[in-house]
Amino acid sequence: MRGEVISIGTELLLGIIVDGNSAWIGEQLALAGIDCFFHVKVGDNFQRIEGCIRQALARSDAVICCGGLGPTQDDITRDVIAHVMGVGMRRDAAIAARIERIFASRGRVMPQNNLRQADIPIGASAIAEMPGTAPGLVCPIGNKVLYAVPGVPSEMREMVAGTVLPDLRRRSGQAAVIRSRVLRTWGMSESGLAEVLAGRVEELDRLGNPTLAYQASGIDGIKVRIVAKCADEARARQVLDHEESLLRRLLGDVVFGVDDQSMEHVVIAQLRARNLTLAVAEGLTGGLLAARMSAADPQLIHFRGARIAAEAPQASDRPPSAQAREAAARVREEFATEIGLAAVSGGHTAGTTSAAIALAAAIGDAHYVETIMLPADRPRFRDFAVISVLDLLRKRLSPVAASG
Amino acid sequence: MRGEVISIGTELLLGIIVDGNSAWIGEQLALAGIDCFFHVKVGDNFQRIEGCIRQALARSDAVICCGGLGPTQDDITRDVIAHVMGVGMRRDAAIAARIERIFASRGRVMPQNNLRQADIPIGASAIAEMPGTAPGLVCPIGNKVLYAVPGVPSEMREMVAGTVLPDLRRRSGQAAVIRSRVLRTWGMSESGLAEVLAGRVEELDRLGNPTLAYQASGIDGIKVRIVAKCADEARARQVLDHEESLLRRLLGDVVFGVDDQSMEHVVIAQLRARNLTLAVAEGLTGGLLAARMSAADPQLIHFRGARIAAEAPQASDRPPSAQAREAAARVREEFATEIGLAAVSGGHTAGTTSAAIALAAAIGDAHYVETIMLPADRPRFRDFAVISVLDLLRKRLSPVAASG
Repeated sequence: MRGEVISIGTELLLGIIVDGNSAWIGEQLALAGIDCFFHVKVGDNFQRIEGCIRQALARSDAVICCGGLGPTQDDITRDVIAHVMGVGMRRDAAIAARIERIFASRGRVMPQNNLRQADIPIGASAIAEMPGTAPGLVCPIGNKVLYAVPGVPSEMREMVAGTVLPDLRRRSGQAAVIRSRVLRTWGMSESGLAEVLAGRVEELDRLGNPTLAYQASGIDGIKVRIVAKCADEARARQVLDHEESLLRRLLGDVVFGVDDQSMEHVVIAQLRARNLTLAVAEGLTGGLLAARMSAADPQLIHFRGARIAAEAPQASDRPPSAQAREAAARVREEFATEIGLAAVSGGHTAGTTSAAIALAAAIGDAHYVETIMLPADRPRFRDFAVISVLDLLRKRLSPVAASG
Repeated sequence: MRGEVISIGTELLLGIIVDGNSAWIGEQLALAGIDCFFHVKVGDNFQRIEGCIRQALARSDAVICCGGLGPTQDDITRDVIAHVMGVGMRRDAAIAARIERIFASRGRVMPQNNLRQADIPIGASAIAEMPGTAPGLVCPIGNKVLYAVPGVPSEMREMVAGTVLPDLRRRSGQAAVIRSRVLRTWGMSESGLAEVLAGRVEELDRLGNPTLAYQASGIDGIKVRIVAKCADEARARQVLDHEESLLRRLLGDVVFGVDDQSMEHVVIAQLRARNLTLAVAEGLTGGLLAARMSAADPQLIHFRGARIAAEAPQASDRPPSAQAREAAARVREEFATEIGLAAVSGGHTAGTTSAAIALAAAIGDAHYVETIMLPADRPRFRDFAVISVLDLLRKRLSPVAASG
């Protein structure tokens, strides 16, 4: 079964509203095992909405129209649908009464055109969930089906989850469960990942299940998404677990997290697991490192604090790596933490950053210094420096490194 | 002239990414006076991308394809375009060399498939802006034109603003000039703004030009957008200037900036204008204030540094306002700046933040302390605390306050 989403509203084309509805519906369709090949946005224009609906009905089995069900003159979705179905309208007395009650209960006078929302194309049925005043529609058209839901996200979601998806599952007879998992990586380019995983991708192309996809996500690294389509939940989890461990063997510690785990959350989790505290010295990253760490540890329990200062000009005759090493030791002492972490940029050209880690005597009494190559343009330089420095600490704190 | 946007990527259909690109491009087209009747999302599938491009070329004059230009196997936009154009590819030596240089400068080995990004359909030209490695394309097709830009928003925006829109304006011969200006406000609700501006909005409804619109933008405050449609650039600027000064008289110092000016950029500009330096003490905002200030002053010339630390437990028997006052004075001395700014939260429940400003003897030898009420949920608490504290400093540094 194939689904298609049509988002209706001129404000979507003008960029006044970003269409998050079709993305959400797309995700729900995918999780219900229903393919969806097109999402279309169209303005409040009769002919163009009609054209989009006819095209969608020609190439898809189920069409979800989102928006244009309100009471104003430019809300014409139900009129277009009746025209496509070749039917007239009937006014649904129960819905009309309900709309009148909603206005009465709010102590407001109801403009007459609000009753247009009780008009239902003959042969269609209204969707029972009605959190707002705009009812949704289920419209059988030949052997296909068209749903109309409001553009207000909360109303749309309630109708899609409560009525559209169950109806679609019934019609499709879809038994399969689709589940996904994201492996988050840092330190390897998308094409590098593709090369390492090429063999496995070829195998999976033959097997057909699960599938892999890459998603470059800037300073969140590159995500490798595993999607499994299975008979049931337990089998899907099994397939995801198996694929995850296989990919981890291929990729090694390039994988820093799973699903929603950010780099800073992973590092804070490592500190928490070993009951360690951290303080940070920053130069040209200017507080970005601290801001990310404190977002992951908002009470500042394991991330204890930071000192941010332009590197002293008189220090510039000494190599950044030496400055970083000293800064890490100094900030560790100042905040009395087990770990000090410093990021010092190599002068103001910012092509490299030196990162240093200082460990207290109790956990090794050691120093590590590394130099990181960075993109030259400023905002990315800062972001990349922060995640790269955190990645060094993550590797240092990982069980393998700790035991090595 | 009619434009159309095609967003390419299976992750868009699956709801992994919300397609904000087409909304942004739609807004730009509208501001350039170019109609846009359809936005389409399609997955990484040759036949379906081809179908969408052919349909768009049939019903629109200019098609902007967004995404699918990367180096991996599922990036097939340029192959589909060459097929639709009925041409082969040529490898652009300059682009290939540039891609190789980017990898070399980062000290990384370039996987060979990255060079696919240097392949240009014969008859197309590459878009000069290339912040990442994926070049954009300008493809004349009959009397129409197709543009291909990357899906990475920053790269997309640079190419659309720098190349696509000027090219479109040249092709469309658009006579009317549409220009907009955004006044950025902080400290007044949307309905409060609407009340203050009600009279002016009514006048403008009669005049028809310019128009006003509000846009609530979370921690960026509420934006008031002025849109003017005029015969030429000079007249449009005149209309915007006149409307801006009129609105500023009505709104007073609620207006903190214009267009892209963030609160932190405004504060740094104030410091620069008066040649002052600032240091910051942060508690539970955890570096967010420093990160924003350093983004606006990346060399840390006026924003000299920050100290971030959980508020000392032993200090909690004293009121946050006293703690903030001391912290501002202390950090000012530590970093030897003219101004110290401190943000101290009232305990861990975070319903309020005390902000304190300490000024050196040379510029007033004064202290100011204020308490800010904040939303209770954590991420917004941090963001709102930061912009509210900066807004206090902005008002204190504004010429009116300084002379008062």
